[in-house]
Parts: sequence; C-alpha cells; structure tokens
Amino acid sequence: MESKNLKIMAYSRKIIDKLNAELLSYVKGEPVDLYEASAHLLKAGGKRLRPILLLAVAKGYGLEEDKALPAAVAIELLHNFTLVHDDIMDRDAFRRNVPTVHSIWGEALAILAGDLLFSKSFEAILDLEKKGIRHDLVVRATRKLAWASVTVAEGQALDMDFEKRDDVSEEDYMLMIEKKTAALFQAAAEIGAIIAGASEEQIKHIGEYARLAGKAFQIRDDILGLKADEKKLGKPVLSDIREGKRTILVIYALSKLDANKRRVLLSILGDRTAPIEKLRYAARLIEDSGAVQYAWIKARKLIDEALKHLEKSGVNDEVYEMLSELAEYIVSREK
Amino acid sequence: MESKNLKIMAYSRKIIDKLNAELLSYVKGEPVDLYEASAHLLKAGGKRLRPILLLAVAKGYGLEEDKALPAAVAIELLHNFTLVHDDIMDRDAFRRNVPTVHSIWGEALAILAGDLLFSKSFEAILDLEKKGIRHDLVVRATRKLAWASVTVAEGQALDMDFEKRDDVSEEDYMLMIEKKTAALFQAAAEIGAIIAGASEEQIKHIGEYARLAGKAFQIRDDILGLKADEKKLGKPVLSDIREGKRTILVIYALSKLDANKRRVLLSILGDRTAPIEKLRYAARLIEDSGAVQYAWIKARKLIDEALKHLEKSGVNDEVYEMLSELAEYIVSREK
Repeated sequence: MESKNLKIMAYSRKIIDKLNAELLSYVKGEPVDLYEASAHLLKAGGKRLRPILLLAVAKGYGLEEDKALPAAVAIELLHNFTLVHDDIMDRDAFRRNVPTVHSIWGEALAILAGDLLFSKSFEAILDLEKKGIRHDLVVRATRKLAWASVTVAEGQALDMDFEKRDDVSEEDYMLMIEKKTAALFQAAAEIGAIIAGASEEQIKHIGEYARLAGKAFQIRDDILGLKADEKKLGKPVLSDIREGKRTILVIYALSKLDANKRRVLLSILGDRTAPIEKLRYAARLIEDSGAVQYAWIKARKLIDEALKHLEKSGVNDEVYEMLSELAEYIVSREK
Repeated sequence: MESKNLKIMAYSRKIIDKLNAELLSYVKGEPVDLYEASAHLLKAGGKRLRPILLLAVAKGYGLEEDKALPAAVAIELLHNFTLVHDDIMDRDAFRRNVPTVHSIWGEALAILAGDLLFSKSFEAILDLEKKGIRHDLVVRATRKLAWASVTVAEGQALDMDFEKRDDVSEEDYMLMIEKKTAALFQAAAEIGAIIAGASEEQIKHIGEYARLAGKAFQIRDDILGLKADEKKLGKPVLSDIREGKRTILVIYALSKLDANKRRVLLSILGDRTAPIEKLRYAARLIEDSGAVQYAWIKARKLIDEALKHLEKSGVNDEVYEMLSELAEYIVSREK
C-alpha cells in the first residue's frame, strides 16, 4: 500500500518485509524453473492487502502477528495462484508492471506454477499448528481457505461466461464479484478472527465488513481499469474492454446508452484486435453514460455498510482505526 | 479394477458405488458449466485405485470405511485434478475413452475445472472432522494431501522438462516418477493409516509399500502406453512417443541402440506430426532393444520390495491379503 500518514500504512510498512520473506520461503525448491515461475509474481510486489487485513484482524482480537503469519502467507499465496491462472485464461500479458508468468514460461508451466502456489497455500495455513494454534481452529481456518478457493473458481467461471453474454444484469455482476473478489477478503478476515479465538458474533461481523469492502474493492478496480495511470496500475488499462468483461461500468452504460451507441459499444467489447483508438472511444461512451459516478456511489455505499459491521466487530481500538482507514483506502486508491 | 476372483476385487466391487456417489456429491453446484466440466472425467470411470488403497489401509488398522470415506474422496479428487491439468499441458485429446475436459470445454474452463477439483479435494479431507476423526489427525492427513500435491506438481514439471532433453538418465526418471506418481500412492496409504490411528512405524511401512508399488505402477503404465489395447486403455497408445516422454523404455532403448537407430528414435520422439507408421517404427525400435523386458523386471523388483514393507506394516490378515493382491495387480494389469 502507498505511503500515507495513516495507521494502517504504518502497520503495513512495519510488517511487510517479514511477510514478504515468509512468503518467499514457501516458494523455494526444485525443479528451479517451476519455483522461479511460481515466485515471479510474488517478487513483482503487490499491495498485500489480504494478508495485511488478516494480520490486522488477528491483532484486533489479541493474537500476535507471528502466530497469524502462516495464515497471512496462505491467503496471499492463494491470491497469487488465482492471478497466475486468471492471466492465462484472460490472455493478459502484464501485471504488477512485469510480464505475466505464462508470457515468460509458457502456458503449461504457468498452469503448474499456479497449482504449486495453491498447494503451498494449504501447506502454509496448516503451519498454524506449529505456532501452537489449537487443532480445531486450524481445521476451521483451513476449511475457510478451501471454501474461498471453491468460491473464487465459481466467480471466475461466471466472469468468463459473462464475456459471451449481452444480458448480464447488475445483480449477476454483484453475485460474480461476491464470489470472485469478496470471498477472499471475507476469508482473510474470518480466518484472522478464527485463529485469534474470536466469538461467532465477532467472526460474523468482521467477515461482513471484509466481504462488503471486498465488493467495493472490485468496483474500484473496474473504475481504475478504465481511468487509471497505466504505470501506476501495473497492467494495461482498457484491457477489460478488450476482453469484453462485464464490469459494473459496462453494464450501467449498456442500460443507459441509446440503441445506436449501445450497438457500437457492444461491437468493441471483446474485440481483441481493436486498435487503442476504438478502445478509448468505448471508454468515452462508458464515461459519458455516467457509469463512473454511478459505480463510485455504489462502492461508497458498500463501504458505509462495511463500517457498520466493523463497529459491531469488537476489534480493539487500534485495529478499529486501522480497518476504518483500510476501507477508505479501498475506494480511494489509485492502484 | 477388473473383475477377478480376488479379495481386493470383491472389496472394490463392494464399495465402488458408495465411493462414486460420494465423489460426485462433491462436484455439484453452479455455474453448471464449471461443475459439468469438473465432473466429466470422474463420471467417465477410472480404476479408483488410490481411494481403494486408502480405504483398505484404514480398514487394515481398524477404521470403518464410512469414517475414512472423505479422505478417499479427497485422494481421487486430487488425482482427477492432476489429470485434467496434465491433459491440457500434454495436449491429450482422450482419456478413459472420452474426450478430455479441455477438448470439450476449452482450455480456460478446463484450467478452472482442475482448480475446482483441487479445492474440493481439501474440502473433502477436512470433512473427516464430521466423522469424528481427531482434529490433530485431520490436520496431519490434510498436511499429507498438501505435500502430495506439491510433489506431484514438481514431478509433472520434471516430466515436461525431460521432453526437451536427450540426456535423461534412469536415475532422473526414477526421481520423476517418485514425485509424479508414487507420492500420491504413498499419501493415500499414509493418510489411511494416520486417520486410523496407526503407529509411526506402521505409517512408515505402509507408506513405503505404497510408494514402491506406485513406482511399479508408473513403469507398468509406460509399458501399457507402448503395448496396450487402445480401447481397453481408454487413451491413445504411442502418445508417449508422440509427446517425447522420457519413459523408462525410451531411456533404456536410447542407451542400448546403435548410433544410427538412436538418431532415428530421437527424431521421432516428440514429433507431434509424425504419422502412425513412424510411431509404430519407434515402438518397434524400443521393443527390439529389450526395454520392455528390462522395465518389467524393474517393476517386479519394486513390487517384491513393496511386499517386504507390507509384511512389516501390521495391517490385519484380511487387508494384508488384499494389499498383496493389489501389488500383483499393479504389475499385471492390462489397463
């Protein structure tokens, strides 16, 4: 995350080196090619939002960082696994300002690198045992991780299916991002709470906070995909349009544009050979429809809802402040 | 497995319907496309060797079938996940007498179907908790599953790397099959023993039995890939040659053939456009080198070693007999 004068940023800076070292320690071995491909995206950086969320939540319920670390690593490994496979499926060539894994090592090894990260994610979370976390809590945390990975796969399937459809509703979209993006945020927060021994009520509220914030995160992602600075974002802007993704912006625009402009927008969506001028024109059609403003308000509402659950979550004051800031960061971030 | 007058076959017939029903119960949901793609290979059959091994071992240490079932399901789901991804990487069009997942649903959804099976495999093993298995044993069993999935990925990476090399030694090959094939057999047996509460000594011996039998299984697989009846095998014979796989047969033949024939064999290995006549010629070169006989003896020795560990494993008499038969079946099977 960016350097700002916020508690959550200070916290992130304090733990990031340890987190990164721990992350990479899980992706060492032979054959060298496989492990290099697996570590590639991890080494390229990333915001580490999900593991920081997990660690903050655990801290908020009284568990030391060091004990929660294997779970934080697990969440980030799982996230990176999904990115590696998604990049193959979406044929994306860049992420985090570096070429994607399959662009360097080819599809076969990239599939395998994703699989390895996935396996390592489970190895990591089971290492909670070594930190003295109770076995029943380790099982419950691991179950949540498996649930998240099932759910994210379902979400990615919906996302791909939507690319082929012109009738995707906002409701469809909300279900898709619930699965594809929000589930992992929810799992991160719930796992942090579970291993810290939080109550059922606390687990529920902190999970809801994260789930709603996760949805807002995806909406912000859609907006950034249209408007961000490409260097800052680390991946090509307008690729959502090229791939025909049914983002909330696209869905809104399609519902508001007149028949003629709607037809033009549909003809550009998913056209992988479209020149940049055409993509920019599509982006302008979307912007002119008022979609960005609409999406922004939607994200804002989700964050307000998330904050209500945070209030009831019972985390300590320090973490309460950090997680409020995190929620605000999620809708205001520029990358 | 085939219907023969053996205890292990009778056991397999007795439990297979329940096992299959349980397997499929984990692969139901939405989006429908994703779940159909995920269930496709499972529905096409398969020998279910690994889950049967797991159930038999658990029984051999006194655990009822029903309690071990989630782990048996987990092992077969993990196996099927690796098949779905391997088929993409190896560009195989048929398996179990049906088109492979990516041939029907495309690569993107096949990657995702594999990922889903992988996730479900962990959901399944964690369901041991619901059967009253002690939490520390559930954690240990799940750890073994994660270890197996890491190891299988490493093995597949070696296997693919070998296709590009002409200097693969028998030692390299043995390490590769240890990881790609034997690890999952070993995990199946060890997990069966772990959840049944077997001693460390027992877990070690039954694991060794399965590991060695697993290596013999792969060698038999190599032989069947050269000589089997295609219909019975359910996948194209000679595809190992087309893909340039460094099987034990190929490695032996390359070490024995004269320079001229060696060159010819190397020129055909991995030539995906080679007509069937050329593949058959390569197969003849391999056979004439004595490779099949050599591999058969190698497999036989591994089985003899495996049986020594089985003797020390302390499983009950009934299961001892079943697992002896299973070992013999592994090197004599025709599919």
